[in-house]
Amino acid sequence: MIRKRKELVICPLGGMGEIGKNMTVIGYGGKYIVIDCGLKFPEEDMLGIDFVIPDVSFLMENRENILAFIITHGHEDHIGALPFVLPKLNVPVYCTQLTAGLIENKLTEACPHFKPCFNIVEQCDHARIGDFEVEFIELCHSIPDSCALAITTPLGIIFHSGDFKFDTTPTDGVSPDFSALARIGDKGVLLAMVDSTNVERPGFTPSEKCTRETFDKLFRKYKDRRILVATFASNLNRIASIIAISQRFNRKILILGRSMVANVELACRLGYMKIPAGMLITAEEAKNIAPNRLTVITTGSQGEPFSGLVIMSRNSHKQVTLGNKDVVIISATPIPGNEKLVSDTINRLFELGVEVVYSSHGGGQDIIHVSGHASREELKLLFSLVRPRFFVPCHGEYRHLVHHAALAHEMGLGPRHVFILQNGDVLRMETNTKAVIGKPVQTGAILVDGVALGEFEKSIVRERRDLGEKGIVTISVVLNSHHSLIAEPQVETRGTVINSENRHYRNEFIHAVKDAVVQLERVPGADVEGLPTEIRKRIRRIYSKTTRDFPTIVPLVTVLKR
Amino acid sequence: MIRKRKELVICPLGGMGEIGKNMTVIGYGGKYIVIDCGLKFPEEDMLGIDFVIPDVSFLMENRENILAFIITHGHEDHIGALPFVLPKLNVPVYCTQLTAGLIENKLTEACPHFKPCFNIVEQCDHARIGDFEVEFIELCHSIPDSCALAITTPLGIIFHSGDFKFDTTPTDGVSPDFSALARIGDKGVLLAMVDSTNVERPGFTPSEKCTRETFDKLFRKYKDRRILVATFASNLNRIASIIAISQRFNRKILILGRSMVANVELACRLGYMKIPAGMLITAEEAKNIAPNRLTVITTGSQGEPFSGLVIMSRNSHKQVTLGNKDVVIISATPIPGNEKLVSDTINRLFELGVEVVYSSHGGGQDIIHVSGHASREELKLLFSLVRPRFFVPCHGEYRHLVHHAALAHEMGLGPRHVFILQNGDVLRMETNTKAVIGKPVQTGAILVDGVALGEFEKSIVRERRDLGEKGIVTISVVLNSHHSLIAEPQVETRGTVINSENRHYRNEFIHAVKDAVVQLERVPGADVEGLPTEIRKRIRRIYSKTTRDFPTIVPLVTVLKR
Repeated sequence: MIRKRKELVICPLGGMGEIGKNMTVIGYGGKYIVIDCGLKFPEEDMLGIDFVIPDVSFLMENRENILAFIITHGHEDHIGALPFVLPKLNVPVYCTQLTAGLIENKLTEACPHFKPCFNIVEQCDHARIGDFEVEFIELCHSIPDSCALAITTPLGIIFHSGDFKFDTTPTDGVSPDFSALARIGDKGVLLAMVDSTNVERPGFTPSEKCTRETFDKLFRKYKDRRILVATFASNLNRIASIIAISQRFNRKILILGRSMVANVELACRLGYMKIPAGMLITAEEAKNIAPNRLTVITTGSQGEPFSGLVIMSRNSHKQVTLGNKDVVIISATPIPGNEKLVSDTINRLFELGVEVVYSSHGGGQDIIHVSGHASREELKLLFSLVRPRFFVPCHGEYRHLVHHAALAHEMGLGPRHVFILQNGDVLRMETNTKAVIGKPVQTGAILVDGVALGEFEKSIVRERRDLGEKGIVTISVVLNSHHSLIAEPQVETRGTVINSENRHYRNEFIHAVKDAVVQLERVPGADVEGLPTEIRKRIRRIYSKTTRDFPTIVPLVTVLKR
Repeated sequence: MIRKRKELVICPLGGMGEIGKNMTVIGYGGKYIVIDCGLKFPEEDMLGIDFVIPDVSFLMENRENILAFIITHGHEDHIGALPFVLPKLNVPVYCTQLTAGLIENKLTEACPHFKPCFNIVEQCDHARIGDFEVEFIELCHSIPDSCALAITTPLGIIFHSGDFKFDTTPTDGVSPDFSALARIGDKGVLLAMVDSTNVERPGFTPSEKCTRETFDKLFRKYKDRRILVATFASNLNRIASIIAISQRFNRKILILGRSMVANVELACRLGYMKIPAGMLITAEEAKNIAPNRLTVITTGSQGEPFSGLVIMSRNSHKQVTLGNKDVVIISATPIPGNEKLVSDTINRLFELGVEVVYSSHGGGQDIIHVSGHASREELKLLFSLVRPRFFVPCHGEYRHLVHHAALAHEMGLGPRHVFILQNGDVLRMETNTKAVIGKPVQTGAILVDGVALGEFEKSIVRERRDLGEKGIVTISVVLNSHHSLIAEPQVETRGTVINSENRHYRNEFIHAVKDAVVQLERVPGADVEGLPTEIRKRIRRIYSKTTRDFPTIVPLVTVLKR
């Protein structure tokens, strides 16, 4: 990728034109640092795929020139691909303490024998990594310890926002470091890469404090009931708010959900969260607590099938049974694509008689969830502080990048100073006055289903879609050396409208196979190789009476030697 | 269902706890009328299913006592199941003229030889059907000719709202008939069944006129560009607005999309829409029209894969190529579950350089779509006019029914006067002072995949989901009469992580089968029946190294006689 000794290159390997798998390579003088290493949740048509990670062929090919990973914060879309990538590169990871803890938890589970090398930094720290000096800047997000980065390179400062919002009344007391932003703005920023997630939203994103005020109101309103709150397992500030308010209302806390329990344990151990002794109780202990003295915090705010709230809504949770005396607060809004799952969960809770507080509930103006990403006015404020010469919108679907580029133009940047990059695009700068998009490097999506499949394995996804929508017919045919049938063909169907267990259809199938074999015998010199095609043709004919969607047909032909 | 001669029964066969497949049976003296006969679009996990219709076993069993279908309006969720149900019953259909036209179009396509018997009514008409007298009342909705029903029975009046909103400035000039509602309210309404779709929304649903004003503004703003509008094929009022404004801005109209073309043709033929001669042009003619003299109206506002807009967004539409000189207005909001499809379509349009106007666009307060369903204040207004003694919320997911029941309580009805019914529940009234829920009748969802499958066939959907998420391994094993292998086993995989085309894994599979056969030979008295289980166990072991999701494994064993 680097063609010249003194060239600065910026190459996103993920996160452009998509929400997820964030990863950006920055290079100078033949050496590279990598910002973030995230995963993405699969599209609906990727049946059975657990998640998607970036294609990191470029990193593998340049293994010896990768200096470090810099991780901005501990969300899955920024750390989730590390278990697949880090063991192969084994370079140091620079990040704050909580982020390191979350990465360590992930790695311990996925590759227990691998020992990563961490360089723990604090917000405000500077780290020198080869020709790069990386400053970590405190900004706010929906997880503590989130950083923006100011990366001083020989050509100038690259500013990377990470995921951020400007919350001037944060519940964890960690305010955005406006003066650091102003300082680097004064020094002069060569190029800024900024989070585009909420560029479509006007105004400012509300403060986390708004949700705390809503919880206060709700806990007062429902002071005689058991309260259950569902939120993101990683939203530690929200969880801390719920715990603080529960304490004020003299309620014990029961946390359910593996990931949430692990995150809270980690945050307490590292001092990011303080829970009074005896307040956190087990499911067993909770049975002896009066309902109005208990808050349950759990996962499932996105309707995830195996999460706490969803299992409770199906009335099959081992420890918690919900009923008409309970209140469930869903403290999240559905991520695009999850709307139906969330709606179904809410309906099931209503069927159990539960009172549900959720964001689309008519008439409710209370804020029970706020976004962790900056809206338009915050993006403009950031731009005004940092005043970059070049601008690359990142962390967004394609339309978000276009809107954010338009915003940069509104703020005064000319067309040659704003670049909408695709994953794999390489932005090259030989001087600090000009940037051009060069030849892209290999990139793409690796689908992970237990093991990581490659991009080329998309055929598997296609096969799965066909099977899932149309089913399969499988047939075993045994022929002697003269190509005559010597046993009744075996037929099995799965997921098809016409079923082999139906005697009538089973006979039709067998008849079709016999017919194909006879046809083969009749044609002089016909090859047994053609038999599967003949069988498929005849089976399809049976289906064509009732459907236009033919199942996959797999004939297995065995020809005996003698 | 009817137990007593003079009992009134109300039984929803669909539409309760769901949006879709609306159908309600009303009976008295052993005779029944049926209101609406709709379909529902499939859930995401119903792979390959085209749509879902209500189980109408009850109607089939009482065939000779069904007097008529009464259809409130021509939307799919109210008429879509008729092609599957009407030919089997062949009773008269009462509806307005446009609704009849839409039903006829559906029937002609699905069952060309069937000739339905229509009784065309006008809004305000009364029809006597057995012991029932049905009055059709003009209300507003997103399709012309929508009716509410006032059904006079020997026990009193049943009011059925159909799908409605109160639009006092409708674009088609057909205002809601408030005086008819007041009149039947004064007479006394025994029971009301009312549309619950928008019960969660506060205030009033905006008038269709708001969208017309927005279009006017947008057509002025983009007066130099080609404008393409995507909306629902059935939203004839919206289409009429776009045509009227195009006429004012001196633009010709090109309509693309089979269903939209058919609907507009029908509406013109029946006089519901008037288009000046020469204004409607073909795709061929459109090629010679200047971009700023053309409006294209098409389908795809929900991101439906084979719709006009989606094909254009993929740059593979035969007649229209979109680029950076075009403006696309998406005049609809995503139906829950379609958010991702719509978002993907918008992103692809941005990639083509198209300017897109859509509802979540930041800063845009313009109303480019309004709902066809009443919000809370309209529901309260209807209730105040009709003043029913008993109330049954309908047309909604479970939580909507609960919210609507709560609204009826707010309006003064006591707990024994409001009933949340499930599909199949039978509400019985022997006198006009008391209603009770009796034993339910058979009901459910029939999945339609080319042919109609029954409820019991859900196993097919389960099999498809397994195949789609995990793939399949199929193996053919040929044994001689001593249960020894006499040919190499045949193995084929589809959609699995471990692939039979990989020689290494193919050998592992074959080895596993041989192993199972040897195991069988070793155990004295072991039956060949146990072989598939042994094979499955060993194949699973191969997969367990890389995944926890085992594919479906289908061994086909042939034992030769001699």
